[in-house]
Amino acid sequence: MSINLSKFGFIKRDTPRDINLDPLQTGGVLTPEARHALQEWGDEYSVCDYCGGALDEIKTPPIYDFVHKALPEFLGCDHVRITNGAREAKFAVMHSICKEGDWVVMDGNAHYSSLVAAQRARLNVKLVEKTPAPEYKITLEKYAQAIEEVKRETGRPPALALLTYPDGNYGNLADVKAISRLVHDNGIPFLVNGAYAIGRMPFNAKELGADFVAGSGHKSMSASGPIGVLGVSEEYAPIVLEKSKTHKTKEIELLGCTARGATIMTMIASFPAVYERARPENWQKEVENARWLSAQLENLGLRQMGDKPHNHDLMFFEAMPLYEISQKTDRYFLYREMKARSIHGIKPGLTKNFKISTFGVGREKLGIVADAFKEIIKKYNAC
Amino acid sequence: MSINLSKFGFIKRDTPRDINLDPLQTGGVLTPEARHALQEWGDEYSVCDYCGGALDEIKTPPIYDFVHKALPEFLGCDHVRITNGAREAKFAVMHSICKEGDWVVMDGNAHYSSLVAAQRARLNVKLVEKTPAPEYKITLEKYAQAIEEVKRETGRPPALALLTYPDGNYGNLADVKAISRLVHDNGIPFLVNGAYAIGRMPFNAKELGADFVAGSGHKSMSASGPIGVLGVSEEYAPIVLEKSKTHKTKEIELLGCTARGATIMTMIASFPAVYERARPENWQKEVENARWLSAQLENLGLRQMGDKPHNHDLMFFEAMPLYEISQKTDRYFLYREMKARSIHGIKPGLTKNFKISTFGVGREKLGIVADAFKEIIKKYNAC
Ligand SMILES: Cc1ncc(COP(=O)(O)O)c(C=O)c1O
Ligand SMILES: Cc1ncc(COP(=O)(O)O)c(C=O)c1O
Repeated sequence: MSINLSKFGFIKRDTPRDINLDPLQTGGVLTPEARHALQEWGDEYSVCDYCGGALDEIKTPPIYDFVHKALPEFLGCDHVRITNGAREAKFAVMHSICKEGDWVVMDGNAHYSSLVAAQRARLNVKLVEKTPAPEYKITLEKYAQAIEEVKRETGRPPALALLTYPDGNYGNLADVKAISRLVHDNGIPFLVNGAYAIGRMPFNAKELGADFVAGSGHKSMSASGPIGVLGVSEEYAPIVLEKSKTHKTKEIELLGCTARGATIMTMIASFPAVYERARPENWQKEVENARWLSAQLENLGLRQMGDKPHNHDLMFFEAMPLYEISQKTDRYFLYREMKARSIHGIKPGLTKNFKISTFGVGREKLGIVADAFKEIIKKYNAC
Repeated sequence: MSINLSKFGFIKRDTPRDINLDPLQTGGVLTPEARHALQEWGDEYSVCDYCGGALDEIKTPPIYDFVHKALPEFLGCDHVRITNGAREAKFAVMHSICKEGDWVVMDGNAHYSSLVAAQRARLNVKLVEKTPAPEYKITLEKYAQAIEEVKRETGRPPALALLTYPDGNYGNLADVKAISRLVHDNGIPFLVNGAYAIGRMPFNAKELGADFVAGSGHKSMSASGPIGVLGVSEEYAPIVLEKSKTHKTKEIELLGCTARGATIMTMIASFPAVYERARPENWQKEVENARWLSAQLENLGLRQMGDKPHNHDLMFFEAMPLYEISQKTDRYFLYREMKARSIHGIKPGLTKNFKISTFGVGREKLGIVADAFKEIIKKYNAC
């Protein structure tokens, strides 16, 4: 037997990250309560101690109240279920609402997982063109154009329309209300991918005009993943949440149960804090922090792409001054310099274009980040 | 806003369980290493710190070695991937290998999640009849008969055959090698659901003749869920593990990535211990413990159903003496009495039929369990 067991067992995570700007990570840092919940509920199917047949119906611990009362209110949705992530929520919608070969329209900034989910459901994808650099916006006009193209090419409207709100590249917030009206005027059900919104900023599916929403627990709700949320309107619930004919408590698209362990308990543990941080007044502070850092970095010659002034903590930069340094040194210099300062989040090797998130980092640490960029540019330009 | 936030936050799990016999739980209790890993890797997409585009390719932490070297050896499979659970692995196989409307043959002891996965993939299910009580066996003859029925009714063999090994009700281990030969002689790909085998007992997909295997991390590999493993043979890997045409690192059925958080790190943390416990000599002790408890309970007038002598830690009992007591008292007496002794695992309200698992409990605690049954029966029969 050739397995080298000594490689496995407990492994340390020794990524220096006193300051974390990784867009994947800023909204997923656990609260103390979630960390505690992991220890309490980490074993086996812990939440199933008193299960009567369906995860969302469990009363002890209070999953029922969380899924059927708190989350519908928080998301502005008629029905909510827990999934294993945003992508799993999107796939569940596509797979239940569409038939193989149907068309789905998505914004050209859609996350890869939306495309892969559509491919798994064997759908055809029409991407809405984004405006050119530096804004990369999804406009109502281009959205309408994509719908018209599908109609012209297939003789009928797409089976589903998706908007990434905000998108995961530029942090752009499209005019979702106008798009939802357009989509509905064409008789198309509307899915909002709120992986970067739900748990960070005010979000109400009904106000946005979404029939379905997908959120990500490990990305934006300080939950330990994989976990996500799926919101569905009354109209579509009988389809998306259809129950098995042979196993009457089991929802088919959820394969009966999803987050059957500690993940749901960490989401519940963080919920009071997540609820608080997503209030308009707190979110406004996050937006101000993002704008502040954007201005600092633009002063150094970097260029923030996407919406300006920016409305989200996720920002994409074009960093010519850093790229030029990399040409004189090597492309890992920025990663090394940041790592030395315990600043995590810019992917190793990137210099010309990168994205960062300021969510929850706070003005003081963002000051350290701004100073780090200043020092690094100064240091290498002096050589 | 009407959310009662005080219900959420950190919640205690106060199920008394000094001794845990819950079949869902005995194989999922975390090792100290896994418990430690939860703290280390619980935040955000922690394992993605150095990701190049696909979870199974991550070198730091050593997910690549685990998924591409250790697990294929451990499972006797050409290819292994991490899923969000056994059911998600089964669905991935069914969804990729079969077309809507195809037929799948499954043993009549199949877990509900196999049926619901087939329903989600929009397949027709033919169940193999089990033998009557008390054995509930899946025989080669009945398996052949089910295949013949599908052939007769549809004009061609089923698109997939599944065997639950062991099943989750009686802990029966069918003659999987004979069934796999039969299945392959009919040109049908063969999926073994090893949710109760992988991580508990010796298991080798190639030796069993399985083209696909599904295992459950939170059920049998001392991992914090939801997490599972999917094994695929070289022959079927191009279909099940097909990559996206638009996103070349992303596998479609896995929606790109699955266990993108602490769950995979707990599986890795427990792996050395899981590897050890599944060795033949250690598994043999577990089987002896199960047989020992079975004999003790049969001495008290209970009847163990399924394979006898039994070959697995999961056992189903018909307990007429307890049922008779429940008729004089109430149906929760057994649950109350067990709870008072900190013995968890028999569902509240059950007395006549219940299942328990002895996995990892050890002879000393099983002695306490046997005494508990003896005392309880004596106490109520004295009244
Ligand atoms: C915009 C967007 N949507 C969805 C996802 C996927 O989220 P999850 O991991 O919950 O499936 C991501 C992940 O990066 C994302 O950026
Ligand atoms: C036989 C069997 N297969 C599969 C499963 C499901 O496992 P998972 O939760 O990993 O999907 C179970 C769960 O009880 C089971 O008993």
